[in-house]
This record gives sequence, structure tokens and C-alpha cells, in this order.
Amino acid sequence: MVNVIVSLAVAASVLSTEPPRVDGARLNAHLDALAAFGKTPRGGVSRLAYSEEDRKAREYVAGLMKDAGLEVSTDAAGNIVGRRRGSNPQLPPLILGSHIDSVPDGGKYDGNVGSIGAIEVAHALAARNLTLRHPLEVIVFQNEEGGLIGSSALIGELTDRLLGQTSRSGKTIREGVVFLGGDPAALAGVRRRHGSIAAYLELHIEQGGILDAEKIDIGVVEGIVGIKWWDVTIEGFANHAGTTPMNQRQDALLAAARFIDTVNRIVKSVPGRQVGTVGRIQALPGAPNVIPGRVVVSLELRDLDESRVDMLFQKIEAAAQGLATDTSTKFTFTPLHVNVPAPTDPRIRRVIDEAARGLGLTTKAMPSGAGHDAQNMARLGPAGMIFIPSAGGISHSPLEFSRPQDITNGANVLLRTVLELDRISTR
Amino acid sequence: MVNVIVSLAVAASVLSTEPPRVDGARLNAHLDALAAFGKTPRGGVSRLAYSEEDRKAREYVAGLMKDAGLEVSTDAAGNIVGRRRGSNPQLPPLILGSHIDSVPDGGKYDGNVGSIGAIEVAHALAARNLTLRHPLEVIVFQNEEGGLIGSSALIGELTDRLLGQTSRSGKTIREGVVFLGGDPAALAGVRRRHGSIAAYLELHIEQGGILDAEKIDIGVVEGIVGIKWWDVTIEGFANHAGTTPMNQRQDALLAAARFIDTVNRIVKSVPGRQVGTVGRIQALPGAPNVIPGRVVVSLELRDLDESRVDMLFQKIEAAAQGLATDTSTKFTFTPLHVNVPAPTDPRIRRVIDEAARGLGLTTKAMPSGAGHDAQNMARLGPAGMIFIPSAGGISHSPLEFSRPQDITNGANVLLRTVLELDRISTR
Repeated sequence: MVNVIVSLAVAASVLSTEPPRVDGARLNAHLDALAAFGKTPRGGVSRLAYSEEDRKAREYVAGLMKDAGLEVSTDAAGNIVGRRRGSNPQLPPLILGSHIDSVPDGGKYDGNVGSIGAIEVAHALAARNLTLRHPLEVIVFQNEEGGLIGSSALIGELTDRLLGQTSRSGKTIREGVVFLGGDPAALAGVRRRHGSIAAYLELHIEQGGILDAEKIDIGVVEGIVGIKWWDVTIEGFANHAGTTPMNQRQDALLAAARFIDTVNRIVKSVPGRQVGTVGRIQALPGAPNVIPGRVVVSLELRDLDESRVDMLFQKIEAAAQGLATDTSTKFTFTPLHVNVPAPTDPRIRRVIDEAARGLGLTTKAMPSGAGHDAQNMARLGPAGMIFIPSAGGISHSPLEFSRPQDITNGANVLLRTVLELDRISTR
Repeated sequence: MVNVIVSLAVAASVLSTEPPRVDGARLNAHLDALAAFGKTPRGGVSRLAYSEEDRKAREYVAGLMKDAGLEVSTDAAGNIVGRRRGSNPQLPPLILGSHIDSVPDGGKYDGNVGSIGAIEVAHALAARNLTLRHPLEVIVFQNEEGGLIGSSALIGELTDRLLGQTSRSGKTIREGVVFLGGDPAALAGVRRRHGSIAAYLELHIEQGGILDAEKIDIGVVEGIVGIKWWDVTIEGFANHAGTTPMNQRQDALLAAARFIDTVNRIVKSVPGRQVGTVGRIQALPGAPNVIPGRVVVSLELRDLDESRVDMLFQKIEAAAQGLATDTSTKFTFTPLHVNVPAPTDPRIRRVIDEAARGLGLTTKAMPSGAGHDAQNMARLGPAGMIFIPSAGGISHSPLEFSRPQDITNGANVLLRTVLELDRISTR
């Protein structure tokens, strides 16, 4: 025991001449402890926003923030905010954030890595007694999985309509805000102005399999992709499967099948990282012995470049008209949902990349295919995201996994990025 | 009024030197009157087996049978049986039959044409005071649409298990039998032996669009197709639609889409009248932003030749293995339901064809893609079916329609076929 203390003291004195590092063991231990809240039999986490598990986990995390020397409060939207003063009170804050709510039967890394990572960065700064020029804020947003709710409040978009919606916990969002200690009547005070932040940074698991497959340590996120959704309705004619010859059919499911294959072919036909998905299908009447007369499928397209999404959709729509003719059916596209792309700040991307390389880590520039609170925060000022590998690309699943070393790497990149942005940011 | 009576008398005296004909006006009037039982707003019929509408319609039809000179009774299975004596009591009966129950929101021709047509044949014989050598029976089977229930009793297959099943009316079949005046305890007495009938004949609407499209008057049914059903399960891997690159997906719905297209292509790739249908599909988890991990589709193949169905299935199964490899998914086929083909009797087909041509009608040999009570009756002795055109090939719909002249033609072909079979059948 004495030896250990001595060696830690020696290590500390050696490190004091080096840039600070996070405590990887503490970081991963906190992540494990957090996973106890809403733990599922298969080793994942079900911690729906506004559930009792969510509330208890937030109490635990608020405690970690206090241990890290942060001044902790819950804002009117129910977000946990931890503050650390900077040496120049004129400067706007550097903000680090993520979330700890999960999808049903989700994993213990999504959101949690970024939340605990941000707290660990504050802890590392406190341990070295380092004061930044900028104030530092760590925010654990509420209900990210239900639609980036907590960060919506910061951009003034947590509207009455949104507050009235029922979340997966069964509570309305308004009830959820109150449940977490917020005050729906005081949301105006949470809103921040464009330019009121020095930068926003978020560490997150990739949720895809690119870094893992290419054995790269750190993803430098170029932005959060735009998303467009459509309902595609295909009208044919329902008829008796036994008595209707093959050449007299108007089979809406056959047309839908060719459409699904066509979407896949078109999305893959141009170079790039765009994705296109048909995830939902309903065929009516839906009996084995009746030719389907009506099919509705979802269509989702995502890319960092909105014009590419539009170009792909035009190709898909044109191809569908050809399929309609071939199958004697009719296609109708109903636009449903749009998220515009949110590019990250080029200077922050460069700083993240250099921070990672300075730590001897490999990097890759990449889009985020999933949505994150960062896309809201990017509307307040320059934003950046750091990805670490997801084993096998699996997420939103109990099988979600990121290696402890990758988690530590990500937090160290976050720490170095904070230090560098604090140094170079003129405001 | 006097003139009319005179002209009818003249017509009757002229006709007496000609082969008898049915009274087309009476036939179509009875068909219209029957359509009042369970009439729907869109002009169709909802007359589920064992419903009050079914029971009342059966009373009406039993009355028509009595008017046609038949001795009417309800057998233990709830079928209405009308009998007419023959001149040779040693001979087994010639049986004409069909049904008057309908699918939900069905049409007024399916089953009804054959039932009223058979009664009209008996009426025409009575009007001419013609006695056949064979006894004649007209049977209105119960619950054809629910699985050929009434005719199952005649071949000894109305089992306890079947009696316990709940029909679409909400009643069990056992309750339905009682409701229609049958006696489930006495079903053994309904069963008939192979060889106990001289012939079974059924007039029916085609339910498909071949006769209508080719402007042919009469379909000479070569047999009722065999049907095989499978559940096809496709296992991929459910993953985030935003973060999973196109080349890392195991998209079960993409595999299913290619499968559906492949089924269509393979079924059409060989000459013949076989049909193949995917009518039901379920994709899980079924969200627009999640790549489907599991899809289950139905597969149905029908043909008069069972070996052709087996050959097609082998091609489909082999192609599915290729699709599985291409899409990194797994296909599993679960056989569900089998109906063996029921060929009609070649001699009866020839007699039907000659009867139609003798009336100046055009004919076409064709399979029945739909199931009929005739497929059960074919197990008792030689069976034949006569089809008349369905406008646009529409059936099981309020839009189902057959022209009055076609209905009259069909009944006249049935009448002539009865007369000829009575003449030539040695037993």
C-alpha cells in the first residue's frame, strides 16, 4: 500500500510536466456503475427517459459531477448542468455534453460514454488544479432518444406541442420535465442565443461498424446527416390468388418488392456514404391466398449533403414510375419528416484530429448517421463530435460494446480538444 | 295477359320437340331474390356461414327446391338435400351442388349461381315431366367458404377437431351445424362411400378473368388445383439505419424483396397455368429507422399438377439460398398446408364440352384455381365443373358480376350434361 502511494506520487510528479490525462480506470468504473441503473438480464440497459431508473441514474451522475468539482444544478428543462469557472469571466462557456437515457433494451455505452467522459474531463482538470480561460459546462441532456428533447430547450424549440407528446415512459414530456426537477413554465430561461457558447463538444460511440472494421481509434465527425422520410403507398388490385393468372395481376407487393430492391440499388449506385432504408412494410389484405392490393412502405434517406438526398430521391421516384408501369400499380410518395444536416465546425475537426494524433491515435473523418444533441447545439456556436469504435457496429442493443481503452482514448481526445480550444478560441 | 299465356303455351309446345332448356328469367330472378339475404350497401353480399342471414337464405332456397318438385331435407351436417326419383332404383344418384354462404363483403354470384342453377335444372325437368334413369340430388352445402365443411361430412372428414373450430360467424362449426338444423352426433349417417354416386356436377363462376378476357362462354374445368403453402422466415440483423453503411447490412427486408420478385419470375419462367403468390409479409422490428432483422412472408403455389408445384418450389428454394448468400441472411421454409389436386373426370369433361357446343357456345378447358366442394365430391365418384365468365375476373368482392345470359347458358349446359350423363352412365 505504501509502495502504491509512493508510485502514484511519482507518477503525478512526472505527469505534471506532461499534458493532463483522464483516469481511465475511474472513467470505466463510473461507466460500469452507471450501467446498474436499468440493467437488463442480457447485460444491456433499459433506461427510458423519465423512468424511475432514469431519475436515479441522474442522481448518481449529479453526484459524480460534484465529485469532479462542478457546481451542479438542474435547469428548467430537466437537464443536469455542471459548471466550472474560467479565468476570464467575459468569455462564453465551452460546453461538453451527452445523455444517459436509453432506448428500450438498449446498451450501456450510447450516451453514457460521452456523459461520463465529459465529467471525467472536468475531474482531470480539477485533479491538476487547472483553470481554463473559458467557463466549462458539462450538460447531461434529458431524453435524447425521444427526440433530442433536452437540447431542444436550449435552442428554444421545446414547444407546448412537444411538451404535450407522450414519451415511451408513458409520461408526457411536460410530466417528464417536472419528474426530473425542471419547470416547464420557466423554459424561456434555458434558451441560449446563437453565439453564446465558445464551442460544444460531444464524445460518443460510433454506433456503426466503420471504425471497428477499419481498426481506427477515433472518428472525427464531419457533421450529423440530414434525414428525410416518406411514406410510399403502392396501389394495385386485391384479387384471388388461385383464380387470377400471373399476367392479369396488379400485385402491389410485387411492385413494393421491386421498389425495395431499387432503393438499395440506387443508393449504392453513386459513391459516398449516404444510406437508404425501407424499414417498415404493410401489405393489405395480408392473406396468403389473396394478391395484395395495397402496400405502404417507409423510405428513409440520410446524407451529410441535403442535395445528395434530393438527387437520390429524384432517381428513386423516377424508377418507381417505371415499376408502376411494369406492374400496373400506382406509387404515391408522402413526405413525413425532415432533419437538415448539421455540419460540425472545421476548426474543431482539425483540433480533434490533431489531439488524437498527438496521443498516437489513428483518425478518420466521417459523418454521424445517427442524430445527436450536437445537431441542436451546432445552432448556438461551433460544434464538434468525437467517435470511438462500436464493436461489430452494433448499437441500440444489449450487445452494444466499446473497449475500455477506446473509451479512455476518446475521453483523452476530448480533454486535449478542450485544452486546445480554450487556448486558441478568441471568444 | 291472355296473349302472354297463349304465347307461352305455344312456346312450350314448340320446345317439347327440342331438348329441354332452363327458364333463364326465373333463374336470374331467383338469384336476385337470394341476393337480398345479407345484402351490403355496395351491392354485394355478406352471408357468413351460420349467420342469421345464412339461415334465412337457406330457408328461401329450400322453398325454391320444393317449388322445383324436390323432396327436401336437411342432413345431419346441415346441408340442404333435394331429391328426385329416377326410373331405375338400382342406380346411384347424379348429384348437383354448390353453396350459398359468402366471404365477408363478398359477391352475389359465388356459389349462388351453382345452387340456383342446380335447382333450376330440377325445375326444368319437372316442368317437362321428365324422369331420369338415375335419382337426382341437389345439395346446397353449408360453409364452403370456411373450408368446404358441408362436403367434408360426405367424405367422413368433418372430424371432432374441425367441429371445434370457430368459424367467421363467431360460432364453432359444431354450433353452426346445430344452428342450421343438423345433428353433429349423427354425422356418420351422412358419409358416403366411394362409388356411391353416378356423378357430381357443379356450375360456378370462374372467379378469374380468363373467360371474360378471351370472350369464351363456358369453361370446362380440368380439375381443382393443388395448393401448397409455406411460411418463409428470413433472418438478417436489425441495426441502426443511420449508422450502418450499405455494405455492412444484413437487411432481411431487402432479401425478402428479392425473394418476392424471384418467386414471380420463377413461376412465370415455365409455360403453364401455375400461380405463385406472396400475400402476407411482416418485417421486424418495423421502424423506418431500423434495418429489418427478421421478415416472415407467406408463399403459396398452385397447379393442377402436383409435380409442377414441387418443381417450382425446388427452383424457388435453390434461388433463395443464392439470395441468402448475397444478402448475408438465412432463409427457412416451413410447410404449412397442402391440398392435393383434384382432377375432374375426362368423360364428364367431354360431355360438358359437347353440351356447350350443342348450344352454340364456345368453350375452353381450364383448371379451377380456387377450391370447391367438387374436390371433396371427386373422391366419391366422377366429378365435373362448369365455369361461366366473371366480369373483369373479380370475385370475393361486391364488384363480382356475371351476365344473366352467361348464367342461363351455364345452367343450360348443366341441364344438358345431366341428361347426357343419365343416358350414358352404366351405373
